[in-house]
Amino acid sequence: MNDSINNIFNNIPGGLKAELIDVILETKAVRIERIVSKGHASPPGLWYDQEKDEFVILLDGSAGLLFEEKDELIVMKPGDYLNIPAHARHRVEWTDPSKETVWMAVFY
Amino acid sequence: MNDSINNIFNNIPGGLKAELIDVILETKAVRIERIVSKGHASPPGLWYDQEKDEFVILLDGSAGLLFEEKDELIVMKPGDYLNIPAHARHRVEWTDPSKETVWMAVFY
Repeated sequence: MNDSINNIFNNIPGGLKAELIDVILETKAVRIERIVSKGHASPPGLWYDQEKDEFVILLDGSAGLLFEEKDELIVMKPGDYLNIPAHARHRVEWTDPSKETVWMAVFY
Repeated sequence: MNDSINNIFNNIPGGLKAELIDVILETKAVRIERIVSKGHASPPGLWYDQEKDEFVILLDGSAGLLFEEKDELIVMKPGDYLNIPAHARHRVEWTDPSKETVWMAVFY
């Protein structure tokens, strides 16, 4: 990746059928993804259990995040960020059905 | 850092006298910073020459970025992101004087 400029809200296709993941940057140390949802949630019963730590910031829309160890739904709005340690089992309970929810995730 | 939630637009003090840098996350692999400016620019003649690669996204406000190797001012608005390779000499020519400009930078 060179130093050309991009915008994280650009090139979002209409009528998203599934969550959209684009790798923005990937090196040995770090992977940065854009994740776009519109009303999508993690499949029922699915918990993400990741090898890497993940720092995630929500940039547009809103979402509800659930950690298996906690009995509390975390509601995220624009600007909210969170660190998800490796193997902290979690799932996206819901995302805003009326507009795109855009996240940026840094896996490290 | 645990999995508690924060918002990147919170806790910005009024009347910023200088650029404000907060380290959000730091590990051996990665350092994530929030950078807030209000009309600040890099000191005249200063070029940043960094040991690490930097991925930076502008989240609010606007800024003009200059790379020494190019003769072109890059204007950044919310959602714009850029990768700044290590040792790519650059400076912030200006930031919006009327409101806070908020960046998130990932050094890796």
